[in-house]
Amino acid sequence: MRFRHHVFVCENHRDPSDPRGACGNKGSEAIRAALKAEVARRGLKAQVRVNGAGCLDACAFGPSIVVYPEGVWYGHVSPADVPEIVERHLVGGTPVERLRLPRLEGREPPVS
Amino acid sequence: MRFRHHVFVCENHRDPSDPRGACGNKGSEAIRAALKAEVARRGLKAQVRVNGAGCLDACAFGPSIVVYPEGVWYGHVSPADVPEIVERHLVGGTPVERLRLPRLEGREPPVS
Repeated sequence: MRFRHHVFVCENHRDPSDPRGACGNKGSEAIRAALKAEVARRGLKAQVRVNGAGCLDACAFGPSIVVYPEGVWYGHVSPADVPEIVERHLVGGTPVERLRLPRLEGREPPVS
Repeated sequence: MRFRHHVFVCENHRDPSDPRGACGNKGSEAIRAALKAEVARRGLKAQVRVNGAGCLDACAFGPSIVVYPEGVWYGHVSPADVPEIVERHLVGGTPVERLRLPRLEGREPPVS
C-alpha cells in the first residue's frame, strides 16, 4: 500500500438554496488545510496523504471524510476535530468513534 | 465497507509550462466521465463510486487513478481503457495489470 492512510475530504459545492447541502459550503477546505498542516507538522507526509475530492455522497452528514484503505467515514467534522483524528486514528490506528458514520460503513442498516 | 470499490481520478490542473505535468491537463475529466457512465450502464452505482480528486502525487504517470480499499494504482489511463477497468477489475475483481503502477503500490523499490 502506497500510503498507510489516504484521506479524502469532500469539497463539493452546491447552490446555497439546494436542500441537500454540500460539504464545500460548510467549510471543508479549512478541514483539508488543517489536516494537511497537522500531517506535515507530525512528519507523516510519507505515510499519510490528504486529498480534496468531489461529492462523496454523504451530503447530509457534511463535512464528510473517508479514510482508506480501512474505509472509515467521518461526518460533521470541524477543524477543531483535526488534531484528534490525526493523533488517534492516523498515528494511533484507532478511529475516532464520536465522529464515525456507522451507517455509511455498513455497520447499521440504512434509514429508508 | 460502504462501496465495494471507490475510484478516485486525479483531476489536478497545473500551468501547461509546469514540468511536473498534471492529470487534469491530460484529459482526466473525460476518464472520470467515462467511468461514471460505464458504472451506471452496468448497474453498479450502489457498489462502485467514482470521484474526482485533487493531486494524487502521481503526476509523472498521469492520468492516474487509485482504487480503494484495495489500493490499486493505475497510470497513463485513457478513456479507451475504461471498459476493461470496469469489466475486469470493478466487476471481476482482477486488476488490469498492464495499467498498474507497481512502484506506487510498494511492490517495487522507488526510483531514487
